[in-house]
Amino acid sequence: MKFDATYAELNEHLNRIHQLGTIGKLLSWDEQVNLPEDSADQRAAQHSVLAETAHTAEMDPRLGEILTGLEADLALLTDEQQVVVKEARRDYDIATKLPAEFVREKAKQSSVGYHAWAKARAESDFASYVPVLEKNLELAQREAAYLGWGDRAYDYMIDLHDPGMSAAVISELFGELKKELVPLVKQITASSVKPRTDILRGFPCEAQSSFLHEVTEKLGFNYRRGRIDVSLHPFCSGTGSDIRMTTRFHEDEPLDSLFSSIHETGHGLYEQGLPAEHHANALGRAAGMGVHESQSRLWENQVARSREFWRYFEPRFRQTFPEQTKSVSSDELYLAINTVAPTLIRVDADEVTYNLHIILRFEIEQRLFAGTLAVKDLPEAWNALAGELLGLTPSNDSEGVLQDVHWSDGAFGYFPSYCLGNMMAAQLWYSVLDQHPKLPNEFATGDFTWLLSWLQKNVHVEGKRYDALALTEKVTGEKLSPVALMRYLRERYVPLYCS
Amino acid sequence: MKFDATYAELNEHLNRIHQLGTIGKLLSWDEQVNLPEDSADQRAAQHSVLAETAHTAEMDPRLGEILTGLEADLALLTDEQQVVVKEARRDYDIATKLPAEFVREKAKQSSVGYHAWAKARAESDFASYVPVLEKNLELAQREAAYLGWGDRAYDYMIDLHDPGMSAAVISELFGELKKELVPLVKQITASSVKPRTDILRGFPCEAQSSFLHEVTEKLGFNYRRGRIDVSLHPFCSGTGSDIRMTTRFHEDEPLDSLFSSIHETGHGLYEQGLPAEHHANALGRAAGMGVHESQSRLWENQVARSREFWRYFEPRFRQTFPEQTKSVSSDELYLAINTVAPTLIRVDADEVTYNLHIILRFEIEQRLFAGTLAVKDLPEAWNALAGELLGLTPSNDSEGVLQDVHWSDGAFGYFPSYCLGNMMAAQLWYSVLDQHPKLPNEFATGDFTWLLSWLQKNVHVEGKRYDALALTEKVTGEKLSPVALMRYLRERYVPLYCS
Repeated sequence: MKFDATYAELNEHLNRIHQLGTIGKLLSWDEQVNLPEDSADQRAAQHSVLAETAHTAEMDPRLGEILTGLEADLALLTDEQQVVVKEARRDYDIATKLPAEFVREKAKQSSVGYHAWAKARAESDFASYVPVLEKNLELAQREAAYLGWGDRAYDYMIDLHDPGMSAAVISELFGELKKELVPLVKQITASSVKPRTDILRGFPCEAQSSFLHEVTEKLGFNYRRGRIDVSLHPFCSGTGSDIRMTTRFHEDEPLDSLFSSIHETGHGLYEQGLPAEHHANALGRAAGMGVHESQSRLWENQVARSREFWRYFEPRFRQTFPEQTKSVSSDELYLAINTVAPTLIRVDADEVTYNLHIILRFEIEQRLFAGTLAVKDLPEAWNALAGELLGLTPSNDSEGVLQDVHWSDGAFGYFPSYCLGNMMAAQLWYSVLDQHPKLPNEFATGDFTWLLSWLQKNVHVEGKRYDALALTEKVTGEKLSPVALMRYLRERYVPLYCS
Repeated sequence: MKFDATYAELNEHLNRIHQLGTIGKLLSWDEQVNLPEDSADQRAAQHSVLAETAHTAEMDPRLGEILTGLEADLALLTDEQQVVVKEARRDYDIATKLPAEFVREKAKQSSVGYHAWAKARAESDFASYVPVLEKNLELAQREAAYLGWGDRAYDYMIDLHDPGMSAAVISELFGELKKELVPLVKQITASSVKPRTDILRGFPCEAQSSFLHEVTEKLGFNYRRGRIDVSLHPFCSGTGSDIRMTTRFHEDEPLDSLFSSIHETGHGLYEQGLPAEHHANALGRAAGMGVHESQSRLWENQVARSREFWRYFEPRFRQTFPEQTKSVSSDELYLAINTVAPTLIRVDADEVTYNLHIILRFEIEQRLFAGTLAVKDLPEAWNALAGELLGLTPSNDSEGVLQDVHWSDGAFGYFPSYCLGNMMAAQLWYSVLDQHPKLPNEFATGDFTWLLSWLQKNVHVEGKRYDALALTEKVTGEKLSPVALMRYLRERYVPLYCS
């Protein structure tokens, strides 16, 4: 074919960029997991040289020529090749359309922003943080303009994390969700059923580690191409060829490390399911943050909080921790696993109220970008929304508007992914159940292979061929909506709390 | 100064090359310590992209221009700057004078060689390995010629590992050593004193780990800028800013992990003592393999096999392993620590007979490069020398000529460093003792600071300013010779075995 050589050359460039990226991820993983306490300067120097090398590769003029050449006759390419070219163009534009001066300014601001945020949060001093947020908003708007989004800066930021998504679509989805979810949360919190989480105490970390290894391996994580270690905050990094997950341990919070491991395993299974031969291009990369989150949430929530999951794992749990569980009944354990209790802090939230935290942030971000909310008025707006959505009011800004790191780095438009992922997870779940109703029974016997295989064949294998909306519709036969999520939350929590 | 800007630009280039090198080292460390079993393909792809990037940086024509510019007026540079330029030139020549085709051929042969060696060793099949060694010898000779060494290929290989050293110098040193050492080994092996190593059994690995942490930290290793992990073969990697050492554990060989950790700690202390501000250039890099080995051997042997070292650590050892040591007397323990027993395998050898293994390899390498020994006749020559030097004859080539990996990768001229390191270590040791006779008494109280500080001030701080011969003479006031090593071995082992 006419373009074979050019297309092959494109893939050489993409492979180089991809491998430099995976090396950077390994440096970051090592930084969180292994780096000696005084070696941060050395790691920063390595990151700096590597980032410069990667940036040079990303903006290589030859890459631009190749893309222009292929785009001139797109129809000569297969559909798959067109996806690769389109996404490579997107990345190339981001690498080349931002003036070097702007990139430097943003990099500097990123470091300034982080430290300003950490200090402001520690001292609950929002005023000192105002200039940082104002600057970050301005940078986001300029960036969007450079990349041809005009004044649609918020849509640009959303699209960065979730290609194809927009504020208008999210606004409609979250609007519907909010209408149904707020009353459900009220119903649950009014219940006299109160889970006790303090019944799980004194779980040795080593035994927790071996139990979560057993669980995550059973779910299908391939430990011959991945591992799990300990870091301050759990995360999942690497590519499907070498996935590095982390968790954390606390003797009195065995469910925290277990569920965060299962969550990261969901991310890891997605990466391991992406076609390995395409890891360097769009066909082997995740469709977006929302889809990624749908995979982690599906395994964490729909699967691992289910009765059937625990029918299989509870005896193993008790066997591993006989002393710690002997005075805990099955019902108490299951209720602790499915705790719902509004909290001010997003990262501590349960899967029901978590969505309200996201809706709150989305409404704030919309207003900030629309210019209808000034940065200095953020705390007031935040606290009002917290009251309205969660029924709780922060006593200071550290447990309010200052709690998240994201905005300090200019990561606007990121939060919605979490809730979009929850919606997709539930919608995928009922689609799977329709096709294979005995799935929960299989879970009860420790068999999770059908689900993983279905996700691999329907979601993972597609890479970036479809965006989140198109993928959801293709796989479930219905447009993305909050209906499935609400159905799932009701089916799981109403019987537990309100029956 | 006229050259300030150019010299600064040189250092920018060197820093970039250095950081890419440290990233490569981290990838290799991670490969040995963490890599999931099926992820080797991914790591190979990362290494390949990184090596290409580093090679491009190393042969950057601008770097050549800078060097030529500085060399035109060397006298305008300080002595220190001249060292930096001279070493940068050496590296630049190696990067640029080898034709690309040759570099590719060598890289390919390196991989072929390793696998051929592993197979040949497993099957004790030397014949299949002959073509590999012949090819590697030919490559070494061509490489030396490309770099202007004419037919002095063996000197070129030696100089690669130990700048300034040559076959003629080594031949004289090893000749003297052999004359004295062979009779000493005969004297020791004829002794009726036989150490028992089987008295140390059942040492839990976790306790071994915590004990060796205590020991190596006490010796002065800075764990805030380094760590120790587990790998198949112990090694020390990284830069002084982030040293990654490894060891291995076996419940029945507590001395193996302890002494290999102390050995790697010696390497680590050297790296940590190199001037951090110069890590990217010759002033902050090790003087050579021989000097590096002198540091590891000094801590492992002169220090950690001494009575005084154990006067301090034996009570701690017994406290950590009360059950395992209760029927072992102090004398038995000390004799086990100072076991001398000829073996066919170099890596299992004690510090006395180890030198004979090196002399054997040096004599073989000399004859190979001189053309007086054909590759096919290697086993015969090897076995004859083993009989002559060690009094042992291999029953097959796996425990003879096939035991080491080095030659499979074309690493000729590397072995001598080990024995040169032993000589330097002993010579440094008596020099230190002269200046600070109460040093052993300090060891007995757990105080190793004087020695470390002396090594830092006299050896580490110099970087590559002096080669091994010059450094030894500068620091000890005498030319490098085997006199100190023989004195040390006699003082340590004659009283134990022959009194």
